[in-house]
Amino acid sequence: MSHERSTQIQLVNRPSGWPTHDDFRTVVTELPPLAPGEVRVANEFISVDPYMRGRMRDARSYVAPYALGETMAGGAIGRVVASAAPELPEGTVVLHQLGWRDVAQGPAAQFRPELDAPGVPHSLRLGLLGMTGLTAYVGLTAIAGMREGDTVFISGAAGAVGTAAGQFARLLGAGRVIGSAGTDEKVALLTSKYGYDAAFNYRDAPVREQLAAAAPGGIDVFYDNVGGDHLEAALDAFNDGGRAALCGAIVSYNAGSRTAGPDNMGNLITRGLRLEGFTIGNHLQHAPEFRERAGEWFAAGSLAYDETIVDGIDHAVDAFLDMMRGANIGKMLVRI
Amino acid sequence: MSHERSTQIQLVNRPSGWPTHDDFRTVVTELPPLAPGEVRVANEFISVDPYMRGRMRDARSYVAPYALGETMAGGAIGRVVASAAPELPEGTVVLHQLGWRDVAQGPAAQFRPELDAPGVPHSLRLGLLGMTGLTAYVGLTAIAGMREGDTVFISGAAGAVGTAAGQFARLLGAGRVIGSAGTDEKVALLTSKYGYDAAFNYRDAPVREQLAAAAPGGIDVFYDNVGGDHLEAALDAFNDGGRAALCGAIVSYNAGSRTAGPDNMGNLITRGLRLEGFTIGNHLQHAPEFRERAGEWFAAGSLAYDETIVDGIDHAVDAFLDMMRGANIGKMLVRI
Repeated sequence: MSHERSTQIQLVNRPSGWPTHDDFRTVVTELPPLAPGEVRVANEFISVDPYMRGRMRDARSYVAPYALGETMAGGAIGRVVASAAPELPEGTVVLHQLGWRDVAQGPAAQFRPELDAPGVPHSLRLGLLGMTGLTAYVGLTAIAGMREGDTVFISGAAGAVGTAAGQFARLLGAGRVIGSAGTDEKVALLTSKYGYDAAFNYRDAPVREQLAAAAPGGIDVFYDNVGGDHLEAALDAFNDGGRAALCGAIVSYNAGSRTAGPDNMGNLITRGLRLEGFTIGNHLQHAPEFRERAGEWFAAGSLAYDETIVDGIDHAVDAFLDMMRGANIGKMLVRI
Repeated sequence: MSHERSTQIQLVNRPSGWPTHDDFRTVVTELPPLAPGEVRVANEFISVDPYMRGRMRDARSYVAPYALGETMAGGAIGRVVASAAPELPEGTVVLHQLGWRDVAQGPAAQFRPELDAPGVPHSLRLGLLGMTGLTAYVGLTAIAGMREGDTVFISGAAGAVGTAAGQFARLLGAGRVIGSAGTDEKVALLTSKYGYDAAFNYRDAPVREQLAAAAPGGIDVFYDNVGGDHLEAALDAFNDGGRAALCGAIVSYNAGSRTAGPDNMGNLITRGLRLEGFTIGNHLQHAPEFRERAGEWFAAGSLAYDETIVDGIDHAVDAFLDMMRGANIGKMLVRI
């Protein structure tokens, strides 16, 4: 039986401010023989996501904080290399949440078999066609209630969720799609590859000014991955009845202290606006609908994607930190 | 024909900061003879409301700004004293939006006849059983989606909307109702007369601390008439899935500049919270349902109320300023 060892990355400190390598440790474990009903999985890809920074904090949240001294949980996809569970024979491709390790082992119920669909790279099951895509879809539809013809603004638009959200907005009938990103290269991709009507580099000038210029008719929906000045700018740009899906606030994740909120909250009242935050784990009932629609869009060739891939479990922390800094375009993944 | 003159209060400057008497002028007009289809109405009560401060501003809003040099619009109730419209004969009690004047005259379509119900003071048609009550009801139900058992926090709870909202929350099955107010007298009334389970004076200590003490199990719904530190405190006190109806932000209405927003907006994401602002004019479809339920509650003796009444159209500005300062308990009205 191969893959008897598992290299795992564990959280050992709760970072205040930016996480560093010192907040993690690498542990190599000898795996015990499989018990009946268990499988062993060799991971192919591991997902690193912004929400993980939140789970490093010991704060009340929908999602429980990571326990110190335990392996970082998160999405991963791999292949069964040894099985004592008849329902998951060797060779089955499986998704799971056992996170930052090269080899995972446990009861079969912890692993969900994925159809090994021709033409669909496994990595997309973590990104565009997986939780990332679902997050984009649910935010636009169930949370922000996007309607045909809406002008949609997406912050952090060149990230994993943002590239998905922009395309979904277009496919769902948005009238105009506007995105922000942090480099000129990303901004160019938004309009050239992802179908955005307008995009700007938020480092060039105040978001308030750039958004007003990009959306002269105002915005109806805001999909926020950034928070801070982006949210404030959106509150000024909203048309009456505007709706925001707050998915991430990456600017404040690593702030050491509380940061002041938008200075224009009064617009919520005078314009009848709605802000709603969400964590995808509470909205999984939309997954079947999403899988069907996204699968059709992908099969029709309507979806583009980028992946930023880092090789080796030993670089999982690097991948995570790079993603927090915005070094990725599209989905950031660790390839084992 | 009596009531040939109309004394009216007009806005002549857009106040920055607190309005003063200099921002208004009093005009006495000789009314022309009634044209066919017109009625003349002697007002009994005129409503002064927080939203009026917003309309004095020349800012984009659901509700158009007041025009300078025109009579202040707003809710009023009176009786037809002369009629050239058969559908509104002399003596009919009517509601209208012609605002700050002792005598109103115009086409019958501008006036809505009210049943002269025995035992229901006319003033309540402007307050508890009128737009004020509807505002409280819609905020709790359609906007915040209050459910039975919810812990509900109401800021500015001793005002017109707050006294209504607290009672409606109780009658709709709230598990616990908590209110804030700005004087000890008001705080005492909240628990003794209006059925609040707990109340505090927001001038005594930080709202964050007092709310946490009053709601050890957290809050599910926040009905906000105040904004500022109240909203910030609510964001900290919210249970997962909490919902806020933002009705007023009286603390910022008279601020000269923009004020920083809540420093804990990130809670929207981690706890899946929803903030929604509203202006009652966009939700009038709920009026029939409200009138039926509130009428039943009132007839059953289940609703208490207070009114703070100022006499004379010449004191309308005083009444408005007193209301903005929180000098009123319950609905603030001008009696003609």
